[in-house]
Amino acid sequence: MNAQRPLNRFGVEPLAVLTRRLADVAGGRAEPDLVIAGARVLSVYSERILPEREVWIAGGRIAAVKAAGTHQGGAARYDARGGLLAPGLVDPHLHIESSMVTACAYAEAALLNGTTTIVCDSHEIGNVLDAQGIAWMLEDARAAPLNIYLTVPSTVPATSPALETAGGDLTPDKIAALFDAWPEAIGLGEKMDFVAVADGDPRAHAIIRAALERGRPVSGHIYGRDFVAPYAASGVTDTHEAVDRDIADDLLEAGLWIYLRGGPPTTPWHSLPKAIGTITDYGAAWKRACLCTDDRDADDLLEFGLDWVVREAVRMGIPKAAAWAMGSLHPATRYGLDGEVGGFGGGRRADLVLLDDDLVPRSTWYGGELVVEERRVTPRLEAALSRPYRYPAPATATVRLPDPLPALVPPLPAGPCTVNAIRTVLPGIELSHERVALAPGPDWAATLAAHGLCHVAVVERHGLRGSVAHGLLSAFGLRRGAVASSVGHDSHNLVVAGLDEADMRVALAAIEARQGGVCVVADGRVVAMVPLPVAGLLSDKRVGAVAAEMRTLKAAWAEAGCGIPYMGFNLIPLSVIPQIRLTDRGLVLVPEMRLVPLFEPA
Amino acid sequence: MNAQRPLNRFGVEPLAVLTRRLADVAGGRAEPDLVIAGARVLSVYSERILPEREVWIAGGRIAAVKAAGTHQGGAARYDARGGLLAPGLVDPHLHIESSMVTACAYAEAALLNGTTTIVCDSHEIGNVLDAQGIAWMLEDARAAPLNIYLTVPSTVPATSPALETAGGDLTPDKIAALFDAWPEAIGLGEKMDFVAVADGDPRAHAIIRAALERGRPVSGHIYGRDFVAPYAASGVTDTHEAVDRDIADDLLEAGLWIYLRGGPPTTPWHSLPKAIGTITDYGAAWKRACLCTDDRDADDLLEFGLDWVVREAVRMGIPKAAAWAMGSLHPATRYGLDGEVGGFGGGRRADLVLLDDDLVPRSTWYGGELVVEERRVTPRLEAALSRPYRYPAPATATVRLPDPLPALVPPLPAGPCTVNAIRTVLPGIELSHERVALAPGPDWAATLAAHGLCHVAVVERHGLRGSVAHGLLSAFGLRRGAVASSVGHDSHNLVVAGLDEADMRVALAAIEARQGGVCVVADGRVVAMVPLPVAGLLSDKRVGAVAAEMRTLKAAWAEAGCGIPYMGFNLIPLSVIPQIRLTDRGLVLVPEMRLVPLFEPA
Repeated sequence: MNAQRPLNRFGVEPLAVLTRRLADVAGGRAEPDLVIAGARVLSVYSERILPEREVWIAGGRIAAVKAAGTHQGGAARYDARGGLLAPGLVDPHLHIESSMVTACAYAEAALLNGTTTIVCDSHEIGNVLDAQGIAWMLEDARAAPLNIYLTVPSTVPATSPALETAGGDLTPDKIAALFDAWPEAIGLGEKMDFVAVADGDPRAHAIIRAALERGRPVSGHIYGRDFVAPYAASGVTDTHEAVDRDIADDLLEAGLWIYLRGGPPTTPWHSLPKAIGTITDYGAAWKRACLCTDDRDADDLLEFGLDWVVREAVRMGIPKAAAWAMGSLHPATRYGLDGEVGGFGGGRRADLVLLDDDLVPRSTWYGGELVVEERRVTPRLEAALSRPYRYPAPATATVRLPDPLPALVPPLPAGPCTVNAIRTVLPGIELSHERVALAPGPDWAATLAAHGLCHVAVVERHGLRGSVAHGLLSAFGLRRGAVASSVGHDSHNLVVAGLDEADMRVALAAIEARQGGVCVVADGRVVAMVPLPVAGLLSDKRVGAVAAEMRTLKAAWAEAGCGIPYMGFNLIPLSVIPQIRLTDRGLVLVPEMRLVPLFEPA
Repeated sequence: MNAQRPLNRFGVEPLAVLTRRLADVAGGRAEPDLVIAGARVLSVYSERILPEREVWIAGGRIAAVKAAGTHQGGAARYDARGGLLAPGLVDPHLHIESSMVTACAYAEAALLNGTTTIVCDSHEIGNVLDAQGIAWMLEDARAAPLNIYLTVPSTVPATSPALETAGGDLTPDKIAALFDAWPEAIGLGEKMDFVAVADGDPRAHAIIRAALERGRPVSGHIYGRDFVAPYAASGVTDTHEAVDRDIADDLLEAGLWIYLRGGPPTTPWHSLPKAIGTITDYGAAWKRACLCTDDRDADDLLEFGLDWVVREAVRMGIPKAAAWAMGSLHPATRYGLDGEVGGFGGGRRADLVLLDDDLVPRSTWYGGELVVEERRVTPRLEAALSRPYRYPAPATATVRLPDPLPALVPPLPAGPCTVNAIRTVLPGIELSHERVALAPGPDWAATLAAHGLCHVAVVERHGLRGSVAHGLLSAFGLRRGAVASSVGHDSHNLVVAGLDEADMRVALAAIEARQGGVCVVADGRVVAMVPLPVAGLLSDKRVGAVAAEMRTLKAAWAEAGCGIPYMGFNLIPLSVIPQIRLTDRGLVLVPEMRLVPLFEPA
């Protein structure tokens, strides 16, 4: 194979210009570049395991799958030693930003997991940098050793300027322009404002219209069986948020492709086990079911990849070949990519995985190039990973704090009052609204201790409004210092919690200095930090380094006593999830969507 | 519903502009136009029969499928009386011209059979009238009360100008222009020159490239397991020509969608029973299997529609809901139309069929309008059928014979010689090459009788070359007079067979007078005729009238003694099927693709 060929999506020429060469190879008139021999083949088309096959590859594409021993020429051979060859996985819905790495860095983890194609929804960077941020991430994606397609973020900002200050505002026109500029924009991203969609909100429907008029499908995000019918009638044709078998069943019958989401079993993202009941309990056909990952911490990426989700589906009763198809051919078919990826048909990209019999990936070929061998990155991939896309300077200068920084804690009330506190609750997604009767002590330290409270502030960081809002967390459990993050969904203002303002300021200063990050501070110094210089969301390091930093951070986070994981902490400003949230504009009651003061008369 | 709305594909507005209204209806804020109540629903998504449902329709689209009794408003109701509601069928591959009717006329039969969407490959009219003919047929299709999509004819002419004279020559550029001009051109039509494709022929691959570069899939037509790999590697992703379970299995594994073709059981087109063995015998999943009709005589259209093919699949062991899905959702998915047709998902066109429990269609709604009720055309459809598209004058003036007409029979040889005769063999597709030792009698009549021969001539009719070629049929069985046809695949020159030249001339004169047709002549007069004035291929009458004419013609055809059906007769010039063919250029040996003389020295 050609070492000069770039190891990215464009390193393999389009099928349109390769058909004659592939026909020549398949017809025996020309030599393949590579024959992978000695394997069985997992067929995602017929959902069978085919014995004794060999795969002929030319120009980075599948020329043919033949009976073992057919090829007699001098082409390069790879002996698969009885393993099981399967098409590379296709993840139909995920957010690269959740893993706090760039697209180029994400690719390494994906390939190690046997995933060769992903469809990402880059709405976090869109919230920070608007359409320009999405364009930069697409440049990153084009440089990555992975097939990366985009569903254009559909719900930026998540709410309205009255409730929070975002860096992005993706209007219908901007979304249309993204579709027109980027052919890899194959669909509209999850339309998260499902209530607005179901209610017929004009902007939400104008955005959907921009996609449908271009023949692009619309992805969904929905809770609640009552919303299914109006949401489906609005043109949404997939969802990854089916939390149980009943709503999964409703969604399937409403014409949506269902993406069964697997996540670390300790997280609430692991909805697969319940949702799969539409198949395993209710007997629905699985042809319109896919598997996806959605969100992964960097340190979970390797352990809980899409391959792991496939194995979970098998554990829940889906036959092996069908489960693998749900993670490859089905997502490819859903997006009209099944002529390009997702199976071993003639002319498809030679994105292959060699599996053991438990469906654990051992080796991966990307565009016919061996990139992972026996679970190790090959020199070819190593070289590509050492030359990642570099985001331009404006993408790494996005944390613009008010100067001078206003107070991060409110004045201590003069007398008894009621606090609209935010009670953190495991697993950390929902937040309870707790009305605390506050009897102020001599200072904040004594008052916090007496009531089991902790300061929290959200600081606008887009250089737009300079706003800071104060709140109080209940049951958060922080024992000392402060924790802070520049990942504050979805507008990504800074969130900082702490027992004293000095440590809170240290945390913000650390984030400002690195132009993004998550950190734990104690006694005036940073104990642990994951710097996130790209848009305040992404590290510029390799995935292994970020995973290591993340493990250290998580240990410090737990050590500090934080009662919810940092992922939950990042959701404190996400004013679309019940019951109470803190944005840079103040405390938001959800679903009423109105602001309330922190302190009220007793 | 709105009687002013045109009853064609454009009578229902695009989903993109209807989402708000549909959300309002599904959410209960607005009334549906129609509620079809009291039915079970055949779900093609989950492959189950759902009890007690009602379907809410608005703007000609599905607003929601709800539990029975949900709707309480004053909307129009249709009581389905316990029947089974299913989505209208989607036929992924057929040739309207085979039925010798216009697209508008075809629609009537389709709707009676519960078919509401078809993908046609109009390569016959392309062979006569080039790209202009295809454009006219697309205008016809746009006016028809049916969703008609096109796969752009890919193999016009079937061979080369050296071997036959065609009216059309669809170059890669013309094919590209058709894709760019007609959004309903959703794929490339069956690439029939599969040997050329497999061999890497430049023009064949340039045509495939034109489709692939536009993101359009390529349909196939292939015989022979050895060709599967190079053909699939050339970018072909479906076929309807799997003749048995082994090649069907090969094609499925090579990444092709397999269209299982059902036809009248007495014809060789009925390949479904053998090909379906890939599923029923070999255990392949059926998610990439579709059903199709391909070709139907007008009189077979009603009896052997796609609904009949579905029932055949059930008879062969496919569960009912899955078989219906193979005839609706699967073809829609294959062409990326599953957001528009093929199921009852929210927002889809309200194209529905009410079935009895044996899957026999009773009533059909097209875009929410009742067009067939209890197997009868409704007044609404009747009105639409009474105003069909009229082809422009040049489309009905295509039979341009040489003037004066040359001799239709060759001079009687002066002495013994060898004849390269065409021996007709049932079922009429293949033709044997028979070398007959000819001992000439006193005249042709005596000579033919003594040797069991019959004259055959092919007369160029595009006004291009004025060529006439002579042949002799063996075992054809004609007892008197002549038979002739302006449907002579694929170049559609006139074919005439007869025992004396006078009757042969009468037959050609009749066809010229009507500018197309098939006829039987005896004793100097036309005994039966189906006039085909549009391109010499299509009647301008309703389908029932054409079917009646066809039945009369077939009776006369059999009465005349013809040993192969007229469909086989029409294939006499099709110089891509073994062993010997007669075109306007002469006798062609297949697969050598060379001309041989009629008479050779003994």
